Amino acid sequence: MHIVVLAGGVGGARFLRGLLAAAPDAEVTAVVNTGDDVTLHGLRICPDLDTVMYTLGDGIDEDRGWGRRGESWTVKDELAAYGAEPTWFGLGDRDIATHLVRTRMLDAGYPLSDVTAALAQRWQPGVRLLPMSDQRVETHVVVDDPETGRPRAIHFQEWWIRHRAALAASSFVQVGVDDARPGPGVVEALRTADAVVFAPSNPVVSIGTVLGVPGIRDAVRAATGRVVGISPIVDGAALRGMADRCLPVVGVEVSAEGVGRHYGARSAGGLLDAWLVHTGDQATVPGVDVRAVPLLMSSPEATQALAQAALDAAGAGPR
Amino acid sequence: MHIVVLAGGVGGARFLRGLLAAAPDAEVTAVVNTGDDVTLHGLRICPDLDTVMYTLGDGIDEDRGWGRRGESWTVKDELAAYGAEPTWFGLGDRDIATHLVRTRMLDAGYPLSDVTAALAQRWQPGVRLLPMSDQRVETHVVVDDPETGRPRAIHFQEWWIRHRAALAASSFVQVGVDDARPGPGVVEALRTADAVVFAPSNPVVSIGTVLGVPGIRDAVRAATGRVVGISPIVDGAALRGMADRCLPVVGVEVSAEGVGRHYGARSAGGLLDAWLVHTGDQATVPGVDVRAVPLLMSSPEATQALAQAALDAAGAGPR
Repeated sequence: MHIVVLAGGVGGARFLRGLLAAAPDAEVTAVVNTGDDVTLHGLRICPDLDTVMYTLGDGIDEDRGWGRRGESWTVKDELAAYGAEPTWFGLGDRDIATHLVRTRMLDAGYPLSDVTAALAQRWQPGVRLLPMSDQRVETHVVVDDPETGRPRAIHFQEWWIRHRAALAASSFVQVGVDDARPGPGVVEALRTADAVVFAPSNPVVSIGTVLGVPGIRDAVRAATGRVVGISPIVDGAALRGMADRCLPVVGVEVSAEGVGRHYGARSAGGLLDAWLVHTGDQATVPGVDVRAVPLLMSSPEATQALAQAALDAAGAGPR
Repeated sequence: MHIVVLAGGVGGARFLRGLLAAAPDAEVTAVVNTGDDVTLHGLRICPDLDTVMYTLGDGIDEDRGWGRRGESWTVKDELAAYGAEPTWFGLGDRDIATHLVRTRMLDAGYPLSDVTAALAQRWQPGVRLLPMSDQRVETHVVVDDPETGRPRAIHFQEWWIRHRAALAASSFVQVGVDDARPGPGVVEALRTADAVVFAPSNPVVSIGTVLGVPGIRDAVRAATGRVVGISPIVDGAALRGMADRCLPVVGVEVSAEGVGRHYGARSAGGLLDAWLVHTGDQATVPGVDVRAVPLLMSSPEATQALAQAALDAAGAGPR
């Protein structure tokens, strides 16, 4: 059985861990958002790829959900002592080694997919870890500049980390997406998978960014296997992250139903065959098999059960 | 009073500290060897500039003589866990912040002299810190490859750090030196200084490399002030570093007299007006005022006294 999961960072990583527990014999391909990627202090940083890699490779800081366990912050403090901006990004010492290896390989001309495979040699994440694209696509957020009052585009990380998504956003712009192509293996994996799962990641700046790469949306729609989505919204609030700050920007209601309808039914020009919402949540998505199951990934067992529910919704084998 | 010191790393840095103590009101310009510079893991590393900057800025590890006090090695260990070569270079976490700032500025197009000035803003070394050149000049060592037995050029750092200078060397090659020009301010400083001092640094791969930049040797010869050299060889052995491994490669005897004659008298086409050798050492250098004084920089007081002896040999003001 081959399962393809579209994933962002923390939520996607945890779901993948549960999936590996639920289906230990399955071949799993993770197609990961790279729209959060950013170059800081000359280092190329891929937050979602690293979160998935560290989580599945048992290197993650479980409490924070991102970054390395046992992390230290010497380099960050020293950069601040030099007055080197920005100072608001959590750049840990252990993490920096990953960025150094990645930056050096990218500078040497290797595509991100090859770099990701090289890094994964160490972490052995147990899934095939694919960046959504080898081309650079960076999400920017159009905000009203607090000083001038005029619209200004800032990098997603600046909005997300520095401003905690508190600056009112008028739109998201995927810089570079028009020239991007799906990463090597992405379309082929989607086409042939027995099931495609949208992890409970941010529908706008994670899953939405992956789907925005020309060719990926069409490949999902053409998938042989069933497409199952998992709502990141429970009882009208984001489970983690700040999806509730992103959905209104694109005109989507912050509810399991709102997100389900945003993705839409594959039978009606959309993407989903099934949609998992949290027990107690109501959602009507025309043409989609909506199922209410516990969505909280509060323990390894709960996460595995959620993954099993997604597999169940995907049916046994091709639709 | 304006004093220009040609310097390498540890010995040059310690001498400069003594000079600032001996002549607290003097203007001091350090022209520092950059032939040891190397790019590792995508980071541009300038060992001698950093050693001088950290030493004079009170950030140096006094026991090692190089690198930052209170250093940690997290990034280095992590790079090794990725199998990222080389693993033999001592790349500390605190130190890495310096290299990140430098690399980022160089990549943005700033010349090394500007980068050095920016880094020195933090450290306030109390001297004007000038790289010998803004152009990249890297010392390579021609050795017999231990595996093939055939000559091969390796980077100086590989010879020095990895092989502890134990591989027999047949020559040193300053890659890039033909296209190098003296760094901004170097020639002007040499021309107008009241004294020029060669720190007790390696005569081949530190002072020799500085003098190898086209224009610097001529500027030393044309200096208004007296030129005073300090022997790095005491009783036939290198005080620190491995000058005794380098001198034979260029056909110079490992002795205070050998090095003094190698530099030669300014009155006879060479560089020196005065030459300081260690108490007890004998040296005859035709045309040069040879003085025997204690050269061991074994305490702040001893180092200050050595600097004072150099100032004395330079005379009061212009020759």
